[in-house]
Amino acid sequence: MKRTHTCGELNISNVGQNVILQGWVAKVRKMGGLTFVDLRDRYGITQLVLSEAFNEKLSEIKSEYVIEVHGKVIERKSKNKDIATGEVEIEVEEISTINKSKLTPFEIKDGIESNEDTRLVYRYLDLRRPEMQNNLVVRSKMNNSIRNYFVENNFIEIETPIFGKSTPEGARDFLVPSRLNPQKFYALPQSPQLYKQLFMISGLDRYFQIVKCFRDEDLRIDRQPEFTQLDMEMSFADSEDAMNMIEGVVKKTILDIKGIDLKESIQRMTWKESFDKYGNDKPDLRFGYEINTLDELFSNTEVPLFSNLEGKTIRAICVEGLLNKKELEQLSETAKQNSLNILAFAKITNNEWSGSVASKLSETEKESLIKTFNISKDSTILFGVENYEVVSKALGSVRNHVAKLQNLLNPEELKLVWITNFPLFEFSEEENRFVAAHHPFTMPSDGCLDDFDVNLKDAEAKAYDIVLNGFELGGGSQRITDPQLQQRMFDAIGLSKEQVEANFGWFVNAYNYGAPYHSGCALGLDRFCMLLTGAENIREVIAFPKNSSGVDPMTNAPDLVTASQLDELHIKTK
Amino acid sequence: MKRTHTCGELNISNVGQNVILQGWVAKVRKMGGLTFVDLRDRYGITQLVLSEAFNEKLSEIKSEYVIEVHGKVIERKSKNKDIATGEVEIEVEEISTINKSKLTPFEIKDGIESNEDTRLVYRYLDLRRPEMQNNLVVRSKMNNSIRNYFVENNFIEIETPIFGKSTPEGARDFLVPSRLNPQKFYALPQSPQLYKQLFMISGLDRYFQIVKCFRDEDLRIDRQPEFTQLDMEMSFADSEDAMNMIEGVVKKTILDIKGIDLKESIQRMTWKESFDKYGNDKPDLRFGYEINTLDELFSNTEVPLFSNLEGKTIRAICVEGLLNKKELEQLSETAKQNSLNILAFAKITNNEWSGSVASKLSETEKESLIKTFNISKDSTILFGVENYEVVSKALGSVRNHVAKLQNLLNPEELKLVWITNFPLFEFSEEENRFVAAHHPFTMPSDGCLDDFDVNLKDAEAKAYDIVLNGFELGGGSQRITDPQLQQRMFDAIGLSKEQVEANFGWFVNAYNYGAPYHSGCALGLDRFCMLLTGAENIREVIAFPKNSSGVDPMTNAPDLVTASQLDELHIKTK
Repeated sequence: MKRTHTCGELNISNVGQNVILQGWVAKVRKMGGLTFVDLRDRYGITQLVLSEAFNEKLSEIKSEYVIEVHGKVIERKSKNKDIATGEVEIEVEEISTINKSKLTPFEIKDGIESNEDTRLVYRYLDLRRPEMQNNLVVRSKMNNSIRNYFVENNFIEIETPIFGKSTPEGARDFLVPSRLNPQKFYALPQSPQLYKQLFMISGLDRYFQIVKCFRDEDLRIDRQPEFTQLDMEMSFADSEDAMNMIEGVVKKTILDIKGIDLKESIQRMTWKESFDKYGNDKPDLRFGYEINTLDELFSNTEVPLFSNLEGKTIRAICVEGLLNKKELEQLSETAKQNSLNILAFAKITNNEWSGSVASKLSETEKESLIKTFNISKDSTILFGVENYEVVSKALGSVRNHVAKLQNLLNPEELKLVWITNFPLFEFSEEENRFVAAHHPFTMPSDGCLDDFDVNLKDAEAKAYDIVLNGFELGGGSQRITDPQLQQRMFDAIGLSKEQVEANFGWFVNAYNYGAPYHSGCALGLDRFCMLLTGAENIREVIAFPKNSSGVDPMTNAPDLVTASQLDELHIKTK
Repeated sequence: MKRTHTCGELNISNVGQNVILQGWVAKVRKMGGLTFVDLRDRYGITQLVLSEAFNEKLSEIKSEYVIEVHGKVIERKSKNKDIATGEVEIEVEEISTINKSKLTPFEIKDGIESNEDTRLVYRYLDLRRPEMQNNLVVRSKMNNSIRNYFVENNFIEIETPIFGKSTPEGARDFLVPSRLNPQKFYALPQSPQLYKQLFMISGLDRYFQIVKCFRDEDLRIDRQPEFTQLDMEMSFADSEDAMNMIEGVVKKTILDIKGIDLKESIQRMTWKESFDKYGNDKPDLRFGYEINTLDELFSNTEVPLFSNLEGKTIRAICVEGLLNKKELEQLSETAKQNSLNILAFAKITNNEWSGSVASKLSETEKESLIKTFNISKDSTILFGVENYEVVSKALGSVRNHVAKLQNLLNPEELKLVWITNFPLFEFSEEENRFVAAHHPFTMPSDGCLDDFDVNLKDAEAKAYDIVLNGFELGGGSQRITDPQLQQRMFDAIGLSKEQVEANFGWFVNAYNYGAPYHSGCALGLDRFCMLLTGAENIREVIAFPKNSSGVDPMTNAPDLVTASQLDELHIKTK
């Protein structure tokens, strides 16, 4: 027989109906001669009531068995207002087993403490838990919201190849040996960047795609070898147009998923301001604690740490409350990991000053600090002295760490910000030269069009990142469409004509055939979904993720293959 | 400045408005002192009119330049009713060049004769042609129709891994060497079959995905190394449920794209009937010409070819009209390619019989043939004598070839059919044993549940294919969910416990933890889009396809990589 309803569907309006349900046995309990069974499926839980007549049958049925019941919907005496079906139950008339279950290696319920590798080995059982199912349902809704938004805005979804060409710029490629072309390899795409720019040259006008991308990097908590991004590009469009389009889709998705209507325009901040105030380019704006420079304030100080700066700078944040010894030790550790060896501090309570630098502070300095940080209640100031980059980055990390310690990170609060005016180049210590900060097809800002290839250090890009709660959701740029400008860019980073031709001549040549100006953006959807669900890491929003060794503990992929497979591919292992 | 309208947007209601357009110069012609320019973008073409004052500026502007014009919408004198903008033109007041173009290697227009490799090298220009843009637009709409259908039906879209495990069953895998796990390889998925079945065990109930899949086979006209499929699976669902769901999405997509409302249920045909009447399992039902067996009709014949059958069988199709010598030669060639060495024929016109077997036909045989094939006008009967499999397959190919010769294949006519009751096993000459015809997780039909593992030859499967105009659009089955039944299946095809454990133990074990009964299906979307657009092959509906050597002539992928890349992956070429 087929089910007449799912386990999340019946309510008080169905009372009196005869129904058939099918689902998993989640819980069984006996009370006053009756047996109550929670029957579960993706849609919810429905309570079954069975009389003593079913006791023999029930003795064969265990947790996680798949069963079918026929019965009548009746009103419950003790209602459960927490669930949609909580006002009714099913008076069972027939019960049968569809499929049996062995004892599961962990209980199928939310908030389990099971070790992650066990959860990954039995991922199909882990995905039976409502919180994991919710993560996947949200992900599906997110994709649907995003796609319909772009379709409504006249974008067309176009698939780009998974089998591409390896290019030396960027991260490490995954390679696929070609059987039909011995010695040759496809590369899996790190992004569809070049293809989407070609679509603009084709006049396809507005392109989007939700697409798997691949980077062979060492894995970290928020990295997977394969990841999913929303990719888009639009023609006759500058940075503003692309940012507005992305702002629209991010807000719509947040509205559709969280019911939060973010009406105001997303705040904008230059890269310089972000680095100055927050020590990074992805500030979490759910809390303040901005970094201040105190060189002037301490220009006549007696604090030894703050004297004889020699190119270093004094920077500090002021946090609410009095941090205890353990907290200060943890924060010092964070500072050290970021090359800041001393994290000095001063605590202020009722005008009493204490802490590592307090005794040497002059009254004027104390007054100035109170004014600078607008201190009106118990507070702790955390100081660092190092060169500007190092101390800023370190205090940025300390700032985020404080927020964790103080529980300031409410996942239900969503703070978006655009970071703009990125540096066009960054200096590579490894290669001892300037390289493109984003990629070499990024348009310089209007203000540096004349001298970006002379004054590389100060050149800014028409590039933008969108940041949500301290995570980079994604970013993009306006692209170079003028072949002469492109040539100046290659010259600036020291790419010879031969190198350009060998690596992406096929791409650069396309701009000789009439290109519109165009801009685009890409968003990391694993991360967006993680933030929308409040999940702890991206593996929680991926059905079958890899662990930190790049292994799927369920299938044991990657694995050994046969010698004949390698022979056919013209390779051998070593 | 930004465009105020696209090139496909302006019509008689806009007359008098000042507009800004941006697009590509498609055509320039002079007439009576005026210059007319067709300005093109993805949305259409708008005619510009320029007075003599612009002649100098116009002399700098060539085909495929990207330009911007400011002007006023005016009503055309000679209207072009074929295009949406054909009643208006733009009286240009300002014109400027956004981007220049070299002379393109082929003209940007439909129906070009350019060689395919040139089109692929300059794919970004090929995609500028309206017919190619239409193919991609249809593809985007198709995807959107499909996805919204499944979302409306409570399916959730879940992504499955691209990095999976190689399994020995099925086609050849593409492999990806793992840097972090020396000697080990990921395999790219041939389909998400096992993952989607696990989703059902997880209770996710209804899953779908539009997903790239990979098979390392030798390429043919309708094959690419990477292809896209719609994949779906549903729980508490048998074959009928899955077929109904797929029938719904196929009809909805055809309605959305072609405007054709297929109201009747899709015809069903058993695999046996299809093979008997059409010589294959993907009959093109846009025309008749069914195959008939004539052993009985010729039981006392004097035709030498039809005597002394010795296990062979006489089969024939009757086609309208009198095939000429050249056509008959071509059809004989097709028969030979399919191991049928003699394609005999008889032509009938006004009761006159001619052709290779005509002289020996008795009057009774002629009468019986007229009755069997219901002949009332000029016709040609094509006969073959061979064992049942060979002659049926060969006549199936001949039948399709006739339809091409006779122009019976109207791409606007869409004939769908479900093929059901597939054989559960097929005999592998190579391995000298029965193997699973589909995959070893396919449910046997109810009628052979008791003896499918004894009488393998006659065992049928709960499997189904959907066929459109002679192409297999896709197929699926109900799956085995009972571990004991699964074990019988493995025993039937001679897989030992050790082989099962090593290859998909992780998968089979999952069915010990409570599975719903479930069914699913997958559709090939490259092919579906080809049929929806009337394109000649699947490369026409793929933005950047590979050629028949698996090469992208634009990027030159696959290509050589550096020694250090291979070192890092612990492999070398040989």
